[in-house]
Formats: sequence, C-alpha cells, structure tokens
Amino acid sequence: MLNEFEIIEHYFKLPLINQKEVKLGIGDDAAVISLSQDKELVVSIDTLVEGVHFLKGLSPKDVANKSLLVNLSDIAAMGATPRWITLSLTLPENNSVWLEGFSKQFNKLLKNYSLALIGGDLTKGPLSITIQAHGIIPKGKFLQRSGAKPGDYIYVTGELGAAAYALRYLKNTDDNLKPTNDELEKLNKPEPKIQTGLELRDIATSCIDISDGLFIDLSHILNCSKVGADVKLNDIPYSKTLLKLNKDLAIDLALTGGDDYELCFTAPSNLSKSDLEKKITTSKFFKVGRINQLDLKLNLIGDDKKIYKLKSAGYQHF
Amino acid sequence: MLNEFEIIEHYFKLPLINQKEVKLGIGDDAAVISLSQDKELVVSIDTLVEGVHFLKGLSPKDVANKSLLVNLSDIAAMGATPRWITLSLTLPENNSVWLEGFSKQFNKLLKNYSLALIGGDLTKGPLSITIQAHGIIPKGKFLQRSGAKPGDYIYVTGELGAAAYALRYLKNTDDNLKPTNDELEKLNKPEPKIQTGLELRDIATSCIDISDGLFIDLSHILNCSKVGADVKLNDIPYSKTLLKLNKDLAIDLALTGGDDYELCFTAPSNLSKSDLEKKITTSKFFKVGRINQLDLKLNLIGDDKKIYKLKSAGYQHF
Repeated sequence: MLNEFEIIEHYFKLPLINQKEVKLGIGDDAAVISLSQDKELVVSIDTLVEGVHFLKGLSPKDVANKSLLVNLSDIAAMGATPRWITLSLTLPENNSVWLEGFSKQFNKLLKNYSLALIGGDLTKGPLSITIQAHGIIPKGKFLQRSGAKPGDYIYVTGELGAAAYALRYLKNTDDNLKPTNDELEKLNKPEPKIQTGLELRDIATSCIDISDGLFIDLSHILNCSKVGADVKLNDIPYSKTLLKLNKDLAIDLALTGGDDYELCFTAPSNLSKSDLEKKITTSKFFKVGRINQLDLKLNLIGDDKKIYKLKSAGYQHF
Repeated sequence: MLNEFEIIEHYFKLPLINQKEVKLGIGDDAAVISLSQDKELVVSIDTLVEGVHFLKGLSPKDVANKSLLVNLSDIAAMGATPRWITLSLTLPENNSVWLEGFSKQFNKLLKNYSLALIGGDLTKGPLSITIQAHGIIPKGKFLQRSGAKPGDYIYVTGELGAAAYALRYLKNTDDNLKPTNDELEKLNKPEPKIQTGLELRDIATSCIDISDGLFIDLSHILNCSKVGADVKLNDIPYSKTLLKLNKDLAIDLALTGGDDYELCFTAPSNLSKSDLEKKITTSKFFKVGRINQLDLKLNLIGDDKKIYKLKSAGYQHF
C-alpha cells in the first residue's frame, strides 16, 4: 500500500505541459509561479483536522494559532514573505463563542504578520481548517528541497522534539515530567521562521520546514537532491525536557515526532560558523550532519559511530 | 444568530491596510491581486464536505467533477481564465480504488481545461475536498458583484433548478418524475461558464455564479451594488422537468435550490438582444428582470403582477 508521499507522486504528479509560469510544482513546501518580470508568487495549502492535527477540545485561539502558523512556516521555508491568506473553515455548528475566539486570534496574527485575509469559504461539517498562504519573492530567489550538494553541512534552526513531547504529555497521563511552557507553546503556537528564511536565500543550497520530523523532512531534501547524508545523534539540539528522558525516546521524539516547524537547511562547507552568524541573525542554528554521495540514505550515527536504527520513521497520514 | 454571510462579514472582513495589491478582497466570487503591470491574479477557495455538498456514496469520479468544476465556476464569474489548482484532500482511509477513480477524472479535467495542479495536501479525516483555483485576467478587467445600475437588465445563462430537482429526486423516493440525464449530470458535473465569463468582460455591469440559488445570489449583487430589482417569475428559464411540477415547487427549486452554476449578470438596457447575441456566443441567456433603485429589495413578480413570497430564501450552512 502506498504511503502519503507515494500517493501524491503516483496519482497526482503529472508532467506540466505548456506551463512556463510554473517554476516549482508539486513536491516542495510550496509552489512557485512567475507572474511578473521581477517577482514570483509562492503558494502553500494545508488542512488541519480536529483529532488528527490537533487534539479535540483545543481552544479556538490555539486552533487559529496552529492553523495559520504552520502554513506560514511553509512560506518561510521557501525564503518568501507571506502576504495574503485564504481561509476555508468547516464548523460542526454555528458557535459564536468559538468563532469569536478563533477570529480574534486569527485577526491578531494577520496584523502581526502584515497579512490580509482576501477570501474564503464557510461550511458545515466536522471541524477542519484549510488555509492557503500566498507569499512573494524576488524572481529566482526561492529556496527548495533540491540543491543539496555532497560536502554541504546540514543545519537546523532550533531545538527539536518540544512539540512532540508536549503532545505526548497531554495525551499520556503516565508521563509525569511536565514540559516547559515554551515546549507546550511550541506545540500549538509554533513560530514560523520567516526572517530566517529571508536570510537563508543567498546561503542555503536547500531548505525545508520540519513538520513531520527531521528524519522524514531531511529525507525529502535527500530524495529531491539525489544525495545521502550522515547525521550525528550527539549533534542534534534536543529540546530541554528531552535531555531528561530515556535516550531512545528522546531520539525518537526529536527525529520523528514532528510539529517542530524549525527550518532544516544545507549550506556549503566553506562557509564558517562566523560567516553564517553574520548572515543568520534571527535564529539560532545547529550543525547536525553532512551531505554525502555514497548512497541516497540518511544515516544516523550514534555514540559508538555505528548506524542507529529508529523505531518509526515519522508521522504519515497513510 | 448570524447567518453564513453575516458571520464572514462580522468576524473576518477587516479593513485592508497597506494592501494596495489587493484589488478585491472578501465578499465576491473570488479575490483579485495585482501582481504585474498588465495582469491580475484571481483566486477562489471552496471546500466540499461529504453529506453536506454531495451525497454519501457519490462516485469518486463525480466527487472530482463537482469539487473542481464548482471552483472553476467562481473563476468564470470573475471573467478570468483559470490556470493553476491546489488541492487539499482529506480521506477517511487509504483507498486505492477511490484514489484511482478520483485522480483519473481530476487529471482528465485538468487536461481538458488546460490547468496545472501545482500543490496540495493529503490528510486523514472525514471526506472533504478543498480546492483553490487561480486564474489570470488582464488588469482591471475583472467582473464583480458590485456595479449593477438602476435600469440594467438582469440575465441568467441557462435553465435553473435542474440540479436541485435531481438532488431532490435522488434523496426522495416519493418523487416519481425522473429527471432527464442532462438534469442529473448538472448536479454532479456542472459546466463552468468560462468562455462566457470572458465574453461578458466588456458587457456585464455585474456578475455572479449561481451556487446558492438565484434569489440569494442575485441578492448578493443587489447588496454589493446597493440597488434593488424586479424579477418576473414567468421569465425564469425553468429546467425541463420543473415545467411538469407544481408551480410553487418549480419556483422554489429554480430560485432557491442552488447548484446551478449558471452565471447571473446585469447589462445596460441600451444593449439589444442582438447586440448581446453578437458578443455572447458560448451560452444561451435569458432576461429575467431589471435593476431598480426604489429600494434594496429583490421583488419576485408573479402572474398577477403581485409580489410573490418564497417559502425559503435558499441554501445557507448556518
């Protein structure tokens, strides 16, 4: 049976014919369309379903946070500036308290990120939120999953595993190690790395946002770039609470838990740490590994320099 | 309690600040963004939920038909040419038969309409399909709901009530008058009036597609244009089978049933029928009434020249 990514590849990824404006189609964080001599449009659509992408009973405020911010993260991963939003809202009932809570936060975020809501749809049905974000980028400047070269270093912009541990804690009453407030917030109010995406335009050879876990998302970079990689488990920036957990669990959460919305990017190895620090001023960043050309695999290297095997690869819908 | 349109107006329609590229925002069939000196981008998003917008058990082929075509109808109503599609698909299970049926028809339609699928999302959850269509139009040429002037005639591009009767027939085993095949097809495979939309660019003073029924959709034109209208019930082009029904039921289906996806437009009264016939060559069209400025109401005029009262206004989610 095909998995989520194979379904898209098999059923929906057709060759584009007479579509010279389409600079990037299916299979990246967003699509890119060339519409004028100097600018390109970057678009990304995402659906969040109650009970699948967020727990039942999540406050309307946090539904607004999560649904908009994860979408902006896709635009950030392209190095684009998000500008316009369409919102298709499916609600089980006409609930004015929910609508008030959702719209208040949604409108606040629009203001904070200088976005305009330009259209949408309102429908009755099981709670789900679909958002399309539209961004702008100077012609030819977008970041993509392909482009990583053998020898490039691999970086991530922040600690991993916070959101996954927070979700585990909320679902699992056996966990008695409370996540920090920052970790809890990361689950429902991730910070899209928009400014960092802009800073990476002239540095990164490839980029993706970490939504399904570093293992799956870095694998997308490898597949699109037709390269392999070695990642050192000791170099992963584990989120604070993960450092107190059993090591296998910490690795599992950090690499396959998803929902981090940090950026993973590659950059040429001749750029020193201080070169990068001059360019990347709006996020921390951590070197976690290196692109190789030995094979197309993602090797996780453990303490003992042996290859580490994950229990699962990461979140997939199917 | 607020209805569907009031919810959007109350919670989500904020003044646009520093958004000079947004030529048309919330409240029309689609939004319009100016991205180059000569072209504008027209975008429309719609969600279809199983059991709400289509009957449970509808074939995946017809789910593909309906979900894409109703979206193209919004682009047609703007006078734009649809070009690019994003698709967010929420499926209860990984069902290869369903995916094969859906994608085969979806891809066929993309080819027929010279569209490219440029991105999307695949999610587990209750069956729903969200599509955003992106169209292109020369600068300043888009049709909108506002613009109808007192004295303008009101037209529709085809017979009304077919889809509503077909739906009623399929849901109601008491109906023994079988719809024609064309009427059944109109429910699940509506024909977006794209070419007609292009022809109307230099003729129509306002335009909308009829998705919720002529009564509600023409009311949107009246509200946006700040005018009123008289519509003669005898001039409505009733779909074939409706002519055999009880008159009140036929009026109800034709004016409030929805799902017709014909265009309703207004044009200056000095354009004669033959003037219009020279310009509008790809659809039939029927004059159904006239814009007035007496009040902001939509008056339905019956046989007896008295005002006719509908039992319900048309489909609303809330």
